[in-house]
Amino acid sequence: MTPYTATVTVRLKPGVLDPEAETTRRALERLGFELEDLRSADRFEIDLEAADAEEAGDRAAEMAERLLANPTIHDYEVAVSER
Amino acid sequence: MTPYTATVTVRLKPGVLDPEAETTRRALERLGFELEDLRSADRFEIDLEAADAEEAGDRAAEMAERLLANPTIHDYEVAVSER
Repeated sequence: MTPYTATVTVRLKPGVLDPEAETTRRALERLGFELEDLRSADRFEIDLEAADAEEAGDRAAEMAERLLANPTIHDYEVAVSER
Repeated sequence: MTPYTATVTVRLKPGVLDPEAETTRRALERLGFELEDLRSADRFEIDLEAADAEEAGDRAAEMAERLLANPTIHDYEVAVSER
């Protein structure tokens, strides 16, 4: 078994309203920053042991499907690196 | 001016308690997943125009300092890519 860190990034699907990001964008503009758009996402860094990187990625994807992401409104992506 | 996307990742400093991540870790374990640790972070993807990648990164870092991160409890990192 090898120690891996799987990073799961969960973001809203295109078209799903994100009032928190909109509020953050406006607050930055009020502070004088110029920006065109701001999107927010959640990132989970999961330390786990697996036989290989593929198994680590598969398990992290299953965690995303079952708990970390809501498939109705979220997309997610998984990246795996050795620890 | 070139269009860039600056990604700001905001995470808790080591040693700062993260009850949300702890709850998520336990919920995954209750679902039968094996993992050693789980850390959560916020990720902001900011579209902006800048003269070059360095300027885009500097502005995103200033946004992190002023609004996106709380320097008392957060570390942040900035990555810039052309859009």
